[in-house]
Amino acid sequence: MFQTFQSTTTPDQGPPRLSALREEMAGEGIDAFLVPRADAHQGEYVADRDERLAWLTGFTGSAGFAAILKDEAGVFVDGRYTLQVRAQVADDFTPVAWPSTKLEAWLGERLADGATLGFDPWLHTAKEVETLDKALSPKGVTLRHTENLIDRIWENQPALPAGRVEDQPLELTGRSSAEKRADLAKVLKDAGQNAVVLTLPDSISWLLNLRGRDLSHTPVVLAFAIVHADATVDLFTRPSKFSDHDTDPDIRIHRTEKFAPALGALEGKVRIDRATAPLAVSDIVASAGAEVVWGSDPCALPKAKKSEAEIAGTRQAHLRDGAAMVEFLAWLDQKAPKGKLTEIDVVKKLEGFRRATNALRGISFDTICGAGPNGAIVHYRVTDETNRPVRPGELLLIDSGGQYVDGTTDITRTVAVGDVGDEEKACFTKVLKGMIAISLARWPRGLAGRDLDPLARAALWRTGFDYDHGTGHGVGVYLGVHEGPQRLSRISEVPLEPGMILSNEPGYYREGAFGIRIENLVVVRDAEKQGDNRDQLSFETLTYVPIDRRLVDADALDRDERTWLNTYHAEVLDKLGPRLSAGARNWLTDACQPV
Amino acid sequence: MFQTFQSTTTPDQGPPRLSALREEMAGEGIDAFLVPRADAHQGEYVADRDERLAWLTGFTGSAGFAAILKDEAGVFVDGRYTLQVRAQVADDFTPVAWPSTKLEAWLGERLADGATLGFDPWLHTAKEVETLDKALSPKGVTLRHTENLIDRIWENQPALPAGRVEDQPLELTGRSSAEKRADLAKVLKDAGQNAVVLTLPDSISWLLNLRGRDLSHTPVVLAFAIVHADATVDLFTRPSKFSDHDTDPDIRIHRTEKFAPALGALEGKVRIDRATAPLAVSDIVASAGAEVVWGSDPCALPKAKKSEAEIAGTRQAHLRDGAAMVEFLAWLDQKAPKGKLTEIDVVKKLEGFRRATNALRGISFDTICGAGPNGAIVHYRVTDETNRPVRPGELLLIDSGGQYVDGTTDITRTVAVGDVGDEEKACFTKVLKGMIAISLARWPRGLAGRDLDPLARAALWRTGFDYDHGTGHGVGVYLGVHEGPQRLSRISEVPLEPGMILSNEPGYYREGAFGIRIENLVVVRDAEKQGDNRDQLSFETLTYVPIDRRLVDADALDRDERTWLNTYHAEVLDKLGPRLSAGARNWLTDACQPV
Repeated sequence: MFQTFQSTTTPDQGPPRLSALREEMAGEGIDAFLVPRADAHQGEYVADRDERLAWLTGFTGSAGFAAILKDEAGVFVDGRYTLQVRAQVADDFTPVAWPSTKLEAWLGERLADGATLGFDPWLHTAKEVETLDKALSPKGVTLRHTENLIDRIWENQPALPAGRVEDQPLELTGRSSAEKRADLAKVLKDAGQNAVVLTLPDSISWLLNLRGRDLSHTPVVLAFAIVHADATVDLFTRPSKFSDHDTDPDIRIHRTEKFAPALGALEGKVRIDRATAPLAVSDIVASAGAEVVWGSDPCALPKAKKSEAEIAGTRQAHLRDGAAMVEFLAWLDQKAPKGKLTEIDVVKKLEGFRRATNALRGISFDTICGAGPNGAIVHYRVTDETNRPVRPGELLLIDSGGQYVDGTTDITRTVAVGDVGDEEKACFTKVLKGMIAISLARWPRGLAGRDLDPLARAALWRTGFDYDHGTGHGVGVYLGVHEGPQRLSRISEVPLEPGMILSNEPGYYREGAFGIRIENLVVVRDAEKQGDNRDQLSFETLTYVPIDRRLVDADALDRDERTWLNTYHAEVLDKLGPRLSAGARNWLTDACQPV
Repeated sequence: MFQTFQSTTTPDQGPPRLSALREEMAGEGIDAFLVPRADAHQGEYVADRDERLAWLTGFTGSAGFAAILKDEAGVFVDGRYTLQVRAQVADDFTPVAWPSTKLEAWLGERLADGATLGFDPWLHTAKEVETLDKALSPKGVTLRHTENLIDRIWENQPALPAGRVEDQPLELTGRSSAEKRADLAKVLKDAGQNAVVLTLPDSISWLLNLRGRDLSHTPVVLAFAIVHADATVDLFTRPSKFSDHDTDPDIRIHRTEKFAPALGALEGKVRIDRATAPLAVSDIVASAGAEVVWGSDPCALPKAKKSEAEIAGTRQAHLRDGAAMVEFLAWLDQKAPKGKLTEIDVVKKLEGFRRATNALRGISFDTICGAGPNGAIVHYRVTDETNRPVRPGELLLIDSGGQYVDGTTDITRTVAVGDVGDEEKACFTKVLKGMIAISLARWPRGLAGRDLDPLARAALWRTGFDYDHGTGHGVGVYLGVHEGPQRLSRISEVPLEPGMILSNEPGYYREGAFGIRIENLVVVRDAEKQGDNRDQLSFETLTYVPIDRRLVDADALDRDERTWLNTYHAEVLDKLGPRLSAGARNWLTDACQPV
């Protein structure tokens, strides 16, 4: 199993570790120290050795940070983790609601004039530190770079991961690393820049057409890179990952420890992304006399705009994954109404169907499987403690995905277990209308995700409903299931461009009662000319898995919406039917009848 | 009649006037001179004496400007006026497509190093001049303020208008001028500003609860004002407008000629809106030693957020105007299918029905009445030359509005004359879906017009259609039919706030064939709590006039949309029925049957 169900928290170990940290702080003469969940790569998933926040506090959520003072220890978490943090940390820690309480405000109220705030400059971006400095300098607080004090006291801290690298084949990437590097070198030359520093593992993995085994869920190679204007690359990682690997001589592999000295040897203009690179990177470059030029990670946008080969591969991954999902849904529909399943049973079985494809490299995130009221907890991850029976008469929300060599999937279906109430159906239909609105959308080139986001919400808004998450996030190809810069969200001003893969996942959550989310992945395409031949973009759907018709109030759909749903189901049957067991095929035939 | 149908252009007078202007330019030693359509108040409508662009060039459009060189005379107009400008100006003038060709670029290519560009600083804002200066100074072009050279050569230039002012009664404004001025004075005091200069007549008319008769279509008082931090006002206009008027002693009335000296006497910080105030204003204030503080017109937002009294008055104006519209539509429906009417007949009759209310103070703009292909010309204004028969089998688009003392209306209906084709009905239904989407919209407080605009377009976008104008503009209360800052448009980032009145007017235009637009006015309200009791805003509809059911493909509507349309029509019948003649009431009963 890729997924585990233990609650990994160790609240009792928090207090002694906190004492040890405070001793180190005293020794350094600092009044406060920051412990972020982030590693130097600012990723969603971190290696075991970088789980400093969980090690210190017991809090295992995927986002947050701690600010440790002499007599107070704040653990900052967002609304998703309000309940979890209380259950996971000892009394010595104080949960703080973030971002309604900002770190700089919290520190500003507690640190006296003349106090010193210490932090590891490898774990914080230049942008973050600038925000802190602006707020705290006027109050007489000094910011000081330190060694990582957690690493100093963490006995048996795991080593850096050393997963073997693999080449991502050209037929799946569509573009060789040499081509990508040549394009990037041209960008640098045109800007008069000598080099760019890359610190995001998915950018580096994409640029070099490499995949790794360093993290769970995301097949990146954990590394730093310096790409020079001559298109050669210095790569900093654990070299053992490359043993027996036949690497292009233009890619020079070094031990991670050599990264800082290499930064110090750079000259001329060096491009660095202030929103993602550790402050240490720009500090070293600047203090060695080179000129830091702030600029966004130049791999982010080309990576987001998938090649035709990547799109074709992703289509295949979705059909494979879709067939596994249908086998699963057919099984679920047979078993669940009997009332004997739990959420963990469901998660295990789903992973089993995906494994049975013999192509699964990993799950793209821990499956979210919420029965009844658990479905309303947006980022619910079932553990042995929270495991709930799947009861007839309730909704079951299942959000899951797979990593395949040809693509990354992410799909949510909400299904009726036995007969459910009219209110659930009415809400499901509103969510479906939003999800269809995005599926059917065509729009003038140049619009951003912000401009489409309201289309997914309008039906819910009309009756006073909404959902407190974005409508969609970017998705990689055998890379991160969450990637930027593209997204469908009120806060996204990034224009949508052909080739970008996004999720389309409106939802509705009624606390204590039920949760609904319907999610397909889509890819932005030049729309086929029709009507007045305007220059428009549209989405091609990648995910093919039936949507539970029993939850659809067909009278609430308009003609376009009904046609979309029926056409989609006809395509699902057509594409997946030949890939299924006889039993699942029968089930699917029924599930795909027109509404 | 408020509306006339003559083509007022005089192309033959252009060349001698151009020669006279060039003589003045030579006398001043300038190489180029700007002639904008704008007056010192930057309004949509200008007084006769300010029609300098039309006087010089013959072009009578509502927007544009000319740049006169020694040997070339460019007339800059936007896409709406491409055809019109060619018909209206003599060969000595060169039409220029604006904004694709920018003024500064056009001048930059034509003016030599050392050249001088002259302009009247009362007719250009600081923002405009800054753009010119940035582009032209590096090329060695000098910008020089001059007298207005058109005024110097224009024999028999009309005088400034002197329409009598009227008080707008408290029961219609809901707030006294003293209250509004006290609030504004507080804003100034809080910002440490001694005064604000107001140059927009609708801001001044709103602040002083005055209305005037200086311009067609907009009942403002043409004036400038200085509002002091002690809440008193110096008002600059033609004092004869105020003869017999009982004016608050805190409002000191001066001749317009005293405005410049009064600006020169200001001290301390003076707030000026760089986007709307003439450059002359800030120049005079600054050169006299006061400190210019750029800030938006402080009346714009409070004026946009209507009081309950203003909303109540506007509701009444809409019912009165709606009843006139229904009498008109009943008449039209009887006469038009016989094929004997022209567009001008229709416009005259409509104005007649509005006049018959005995409450019409003016039409809020020249009625747009486009039969068949003329409906596709978005800003079409019928003249004797363009007048077209209203033919059975075609659509007729009528966009019109009235000025009443209690409110300003603006309504568009598109009606079938006899039997029209399925394509027209399909397109009408898509436009209607967009118009209903806005009518039904509820949204989280904080969204801007940009965020709602896509809801009005989604149904059209889906088949490759769109419309090249905003979805809605702000509307005043017995003031401008176009007002800012609120709008429903891709380019509007202004948050929508309760009390703002907007038009909701999606459309579809098929060149050479037909045009469709459906327009109601709506007002933003705090939405009644429902569903999850989220903090949402919604629109209340102000316009009650039936929508042509014969053009609706009811099968393409969803349940919400059908319910909205049927409920709307039931309300129309309920509200207007008692106000109608027997014949019109019968017609309306039929027109309001459910779909």
